[in-house]
Amino acid sequence: MKNNLRLETITLGDELLLGLRENSHLTYLGGCLARYGLTMRRNIVIRDDEDEIERAFLDAWNNADILITTGGLGPTVDDITRETIARVLGLNLVHDTSVEEAIRARFAKFERPVTDNNFRQAKVIEGFEALPNSYGTAPGLWFEKDGKRLIMLPGPPMELYPMFERQVLPRLMAEGLIDEKQAYLQLRTCGAGESSLETRLKPLFDSYGNRLSVAYCAHDGMVDVRLSGGSENPLEWSKIQTLGEICQEVIGDDFVTFGDESLAFLLLNHLRGLGKHLAVAESCTGGLLSNAFTDVPGASKVFVGGAVTYNNQAKVEILDVPDVIIQQHGSVSAECAAAMATGAAEKFSADYAISVTGFAGPDGGTPENPVGTVYLGYHSPLGVWSHRLVYPGNRQAVKSRAVYAALDWMRRKLKKYEVEDVLESMTC
Amino acid sequence: MKNNLRLETITLGDELLLGLRENSHLTYLGGCLARYGLTMRRNIVIRDDEDEIERAFLDAWNNADILITTGGLGPTVDDITRETIARVLGLNLVHDTSVEEAIRARFAKFERPVTDNNFRQAKVIEGFEALPNSYGTAPGLWFEKDGKRLIMLPGPPMELYPMFERQVLPRLMAEGLIDEKQAYLQLRTCGAGESSLETRLKPLFDSYGNRLSVAYCAHDGMVDVRLSGGSENPLEWSKIQTLGEICQEVIGDDFVTFGDESLAFLLLNHLRGLGKHLAVAESCTGGLLSNAFTDVPGASKVFVGGAVTYNNQAKVEILDVPDVIIQQHGSVSAECAAAMATGAAEKFSADYAISVTGFAGPDGGTPENPVGTVYLGYHSPLGVWSHRLVYPGNRQAVKSRAVYAALDWMRRKLKKYEVEDVLESMTC
Repeated sequence: MKNNLRLETITLGDELLLGLRENSHLTYLGGCLARYGLTMRRNIVIRDDEDEIERAFLDAWNNADILITTGGLGPTVDDITRETIARVLGLNLVHDTSVEEAIRARFAKFERPVTDNNFRQAKVIEGFEALPNSYGTAPGLWFEKDGKRLIMLPGPPMELYPMFERQVLPRLMAEGLIDEKQAYLQLRTCGAGESSLETRLKPLFDSYGNRLSVAYCAHDGMVDVRLSGGSENPLEWSKIQTLGEICQEVIGDDFVTFGDESLAFLLLNHLRGLGKHLAVAESCTGGLLSNAFTDVPGASKVFVGGAVTYNNQAKVEILDVPDVIIQQHGSVSAECAAAMATGAAEKFSADYAISVTGFAGPDGGTPENPVGTVYLGYHSPLGVWSHRLVYPGNRQAVKSRAVYAALDWMRRKLKKYEVEDVLESMTC
Repeated sequence: MKNNLRLETITLGDELLLGLRENSHLTYLGGCLARYGLTMRRNIVIRDDEDEIERAFLDAWNNADILITTGGLGPTVDDITRETIARVLGLNLVHDTSVEEAIRARFAKFERPVTDNNFRQAKVIEGFEALPNSYGTAPGLWFEKDGKRLIMLPGPPMELYPMFERQVLPRLMAEGLIDEKQAYLQLRTCGAGESSLETRLKPLFDSYGNRLSVAYCAHDGMVDVRLSGGSENPLEWSKIQTLGEICQEVIGDDFVTFGDESLAFLLLNHLRGLGKHLAVAESCTGGLLSNAFTDVPGASKVFVGGAVTYNNQAKVEILDVPDVIIQQHGSVSAECAAAMATGAAEKFSADYAISVTGFAGPDGGTPENPVGTVYLGYHSPLGVWSHRLVYPGNRQAVKSRAVYAALDWMRRKLKKYEVEDVLESMTC
């Protein structure tokens, strides 16, 4: 039943259409809902404009079972979502004294005077239920009619996310509109493109026809393969699991994990199991690799630190890279990458270290190592390796691709040389 | 005329609705078009599904003057945009041998065998013009009918962006559909919220009525105010500029710049003008502050490096933070932040350094310094300061807010103590 439910979202915000901000509402809501078995069917981004809101709202309200709007509930003149939807539905706005009190209390708490425009947020559409906002002044709104649900939520993520998790999700769950367990089997892969993966896996799926549903999702340098029951006589969960294991074998070294854990999480978790510590040394990625590790909650149990050594002097002084290596091979070289990794391990007292050095552009580069050339270094108790890559693209693209490549390369190295080898080599 | 042109976009991709990837197409295209005076009116994200594509395409094609689709042109079975739109328009697909040759050439260049599914990309809708793809196999498509334009572009950013910049933008410009100069005056601010800013500025705008258009856009810890000519008898550009200068005075210390440069760029540029160098020391932000600086092209002329000292030992060994400071005040303290900044300046041989230490959560924190507490440190030739902040929110939110706060605090410090003061203090 859930898979037939049609959930659409309308995101309000000029700044998204002007390219000033990423549409994090879509990413957040889409991810939350998918985990509970409900796939968002479409998302529309429109400006805070009456005509735009009316057209998008009517279209979505006519087609969807659940419609979620985000944004446009705030105090400024361009926040007109509440007023416009009330008008389109032919409903009045009524002043809600409990919301007014919550607004006054919030401003009092932060010892700031309430500007008048804030009280517009105390207007609630008649027949709508106000959802209290613990982190801001604009309440959410919940409305049911003819079996459809309209849920209007504030735009600031710090207000939207807690309201969605604590008030909306539990209610959708209680009403049986979303699932309580994971709805698909996910194989996470790294190293193979979508089309090569599809070519390798397709023969395994062909015999199941409509009994099996397969989706490929590329993101963050990885490709996820999601297996779930199809539209007709859906394949049983146990068979999907068996099929997943066969896929894992076919995917081979490009298989990362079942589930949705990040490469950085898996690496830290692996090292934590070994009781080891990790350090990072970066040049062209400029902090982005350390940032990937420190995005993982609890990273501090394994990740001890990183050095962003952007110029040669920093490489020599902070990481003890021998000056002669830079003189002879340059700072973008296999030799320098290896020395950076070893230096980071020693200076941070870590067992493992990973390093990146390269030309992110737009300037720099040499005939042998043009912009986009990246060397990775890996230091472990078993030895030191380096690896060369060339990525086309702009500065940010080179940075993030180099980070994904470093994480995946370390994963492969750790897999190749298992803990037993390490222990053995240390007792020899 | 351009402001009346209605441009809509359709973004294809299950992974966006599943929350696996940010909709970077929207951010990129919206930003590009806005710079040339054309505001995108709406963006729809849908799945790679025939019915979804048909409904969204018909609605957009009926309403828009220019419709851009992105994604769904690739080789895998779920890439059906080309086939679906051909069917809806009642047009045939024809094999394009020049596209086939380009696909063969690309695979040959990378010495990889062509899988058969790739040749689907050589099918072009009749009457459509193929746009060559320099970075991938799927060509773009361009179509004109009844004064409307349909532009179909590939999804991977590395293919989409160059195709849009080198083929689509110049053509829109040549046809007079977009502008060649900046279309609005932008005041970038930091430190004041949208509603407080509106309250302060509104009295300046009231007398202009519909002659002036004002938009507020909050993003990346900042709020942009955009002034442009209104819908009736638009205000002249020179008057908008004068008004912008008055706004600048009213905004005071919260004013950052005219234009759209980032805080990190402005700081690096300022220090470059002084001939000075910058280092960074971070704990809880874990590399994100260094990353903000190294996202700026040419950062290496000013930014020499950063240390991510995640545990206490790293703070002591890499940054020379005195052990007694950590013993007495803890690593999340004003004293430690100041010592980290000074240590970074000394170890990286930089004139200026900025540091961040705090509890990003979900674990950690003390009764006096709960999760979300952040201390900033600032080292300059004039002295060392520290600053305490408390931010609610999850780990990623604390990290990015701390980075914005650090950048803005350094901006204010640099503004307060100008170069003359520094020179004076050094000759005393």
